[in-house]
Amino acid sequence: MEKKRKLGRGVAVVGAGMSPFGMFAERNSKDLFIEAFREMIPSIDKGFQPNDIDALYLGNFTNDFFVQQSHWGAILVDAIGLVPKPATRTEGACASSALAFREAVFSIASGFYDMVLVGGFEQMSTQSTEQVSEGLALAASPFERQAGFTFPGVFGAIATAYFNRYEATREHLMNVTIKSHENGKLNPKAQHQRTIQEIMDSRLAKAAKNGWPIPDWQDEKAFLADPQANPSIAWPTHLFDCSPISDGAACLLLVGEELATSFSETPIYVRGLGQASGRNLHSCADLTSLEATRFASREAYSMAGLTPDDIQFAEVHDCFSIAEILAIEDLGFFAPGTGFQAVADGQTRLQGSKPINTSGGLKCKGHPVGATGAAQLIEVWQQLRQTAGERQIPSTDLRFGAAQSMGGTGGTCTFTILERR
Amino acid sequence: MEKKRKLGRGVAVVGAGMSPFGMFAERNSKDLFIEAFREMIPSIDKGFQPNDIDALYLGNFTNDFFVQQSHWGAILVDAIGLVPKPATRTEGACASSALAFREAVFSIASGFYDMVLVGGFEQMSTQSTEQVSEGLALAASPFERQAGFTFPGVFGAIATAYFNRYEATREHLMNVTIKSHENGKLNPKAQHQRTIQEIMDSRLAKAAKNGWPIPDWQDEKAFLADPQANPSIAWPTHLFDCSPISDGAACLLLVGEELATSFSETPIYVRGLGQASGRNLHSCADLTSLEATRFASREAYSMAGLTPDDIQFAEVHDCFSIAEILAIEDLGFFAPGTGFQAVADGQTRLQGSKPINTSGGLKCKGHPVGATGAAQLIEVWQQLRQTAGERQIPSTDLRFGAAQSMGGTGGTCTFTILERR
Repeated sequence: MEKKRKLGRGVAVVGAGMSPFGMFAERNSKDLFIEAFREMIPSIDKGFQPNDIDALYLGNFTNDFFVQQSHWGAILVDAIGLVPKPATRTEGACASSALAFREAVFSIASGFYDMVLVGGFEQMSTQSTEQVSEGLALAASPFERQAGFTFPGVFGAIATAYFNRYEATREHLMNVTIKSHENGKLNPKAQHQRTIQEIMDSRLAKAAKNGWPIPDWQDEKAFLADPQANPSIAWPTHLFDCSPISDGAACLLLVGEELATSFSETPIYVRGLGQASGRNLHSCADLTSLEATRFASREAYSMAGLTPDDIQFAEVHDCFSIAEILAIEDLGFFAPGTGFQAVADGQTRLQGSKPINTSGGLKCKGHPVGATGAAQLIEVWQQLRQTAGERQIPSTDLRFGAAQSMGGTGGTCTFTILERR
Repeated sequence: MEKKRKLGRGVAVVGAGMSPFGMFAERNSKDLFIEAFREMIPSIDKGFQPNDIDALYLGNFTNDFFVQQSHWGAILVDAIGLVPKPATRTEGACASSALAFREAVFSIASGFYDMVLVGGFEQMSTQSTEQVSEGLALAASPFERQAGFTFPGVFGAIATAYFNRYEATREHLMNVTIKSHENGKLNPKAQHQRTIQEIMDSRLAKAAKNGWPIPDWQDEKAFLADPQANPSIAWPTHLFDCSPISDGAACLLLVGEELATSFSETPIYVRGLGQASGRNLHSCADLTSLEATRFASREAYSMAGLTPDDIQFAEVHDCFSIAEILAIEDLGFFAPGTGFQAVADGQTRLQGSKPINTSGGLKCKGHPVGATGAAQLIEVWQQLRQTAGERQIPSTDLRFGAAQSMGGTGGTCTFTILERR
């Protein structure tokens, strides 16, 4: 990974759209993708002709398993009226549409295509929780599954190792959750749009109204510490540490750099790309750090000629609270063993020095697996364009933002740095 | 599709390997992929360091469905000892590893990577025939499935339409089968390595030995016409018109053009690429031609500056006999409605003017879905390098060969032209 990567032709993002994320019994992947595509159209400041799209790249984790339909490329290109344009699906578990984004970049940078649509989608909520757990476990290594792990357990083991090594406790996981809910409240597309305080207040009100015993919750942490309110899933992973089961779709429009200002007042450029694979958990020397995130980010920083300090904010893959703490360390934002304290100090809040997961993260925005990588990049795009609404980062000088995606237990990681010039 | 495609940097194939194709109860996808990778190593004439591989692209259709394991990129990169190199899976039904090949080309042509491993794999035979049919049907359009179609039926309908429009009959499908088995006999990796004549003779010998009634088979066509020997699956598709259930893996090594002669005495260059999507069958104006094949091939010919007549031989996606006839017409090798006659005249045989599926095709080489696209390109690579052994095309001046891959009922098609300089 010591080579310095480069692209023969620059690439820019000139449009983006996403469906709401949530549980939608009445809408399937096709409906949600069409919704994302239609929302994208007005985001292209100077307009475009859909027929100028040369190709589609679509990330999806396992709709073959979840909804017994594969080969979605052909279905979705038809759904938005673009036959015979080619469509290629990528899969890398929860990083699936982050991979689609990379392939779109390569296809343009190679000179082959000029305008490419990148999308991601997943339909999960038609499944039972058990079926979803079974489906998600397909992304874990065979060894993890044979050991009886599903993902809450894997990340519970990682959190335990982290607690054991550093001074962290469950309270530090709670800080991540509380922050995510504060951001999610400000995101109209998010699946969970209430702060922990609001959830707590509504439950207290309900108890009072029904004449039930009033829980003794002094603050948000007391609420999260109550096993009735926040049951253990796989210690120390509790319900409010877990990203939800979600449906959703997201898409972005990419063009060759020299074409960018023909479509957008404020194009956002691809500045750095990195991707790496990680070992199965049982053969990792250290559970408190994921090597694929380290390698992927090093590659992207090197290509961009930037350091972690240059990245002003980031979306990271917080499938579980502990994953966010690991990510902000592995990406070099905070030294190993200090991430939990940085969160406690508020540094990763919207007003902090390094805002993380301003979208609400997977935890609150939702985690329709195949859509997640694309949606993370949309958040970065919106923040850089200063169009993130109520959750806009206060700085008016945002130049560099990034997104980290992860598949499985760090089996696949990507890191993508976007730039506003 | 009127744009003329080009690549900013040329790409060459400098190595290839594949496992045998067949039904291997004792070997899983990982074993088969390792076998393909190990076979590739000595094919790189001047040697290479595996650690110089920058990334992997892996085509797989639906091992999540077939063997309840997804996220194979991370598994296989570990299996060949290349962690933390990135691995990206592509899926486009039966064209999955043809898509992987394209992404590898783009990633090198973009300047990002220099050396990329492309692979494909599928493990099917651990499933019952019913489960495989169900799995494969995930690649069909939802409309086709809801109408009760599985693939033999879909291609049966296509054959019926073709028979209705032209002068073709079942006998013309048999010509494809007989030719495929002749080539398969010469391919030591093929799942079926006997000619129809040999299969017939062995059954006659068995009947004689056991004192059974001796069937009155005057020739191969009489054998194929006998419903006992060759039962109907979905008329006019009979058993010997169908590609088999297979396990297998294949891989190729690609490098930037300027590096090619450092690795290979006879590098084979990527001359043309095309990909397109097709409509669901129910909304096609014409069942006797697949638009995605037409568009994909037009794009590749335009990029290559070549015509169908320049392509000296090709591997095409003969999932069923009729698909081969459609392909050789849609690719422009023969005029619409004349492909069946060209096959009857022997033009597509190994010694013919346009050899098709010298490998034995999906029918005889085998069709481990995710490996098929890569394996087709390996056959073209070997023929161009004059290393195809007994099935080598007689011409000593082979310059241009091509492979057509298809996913679903023409939902995804690719066409790739390779060149020996």
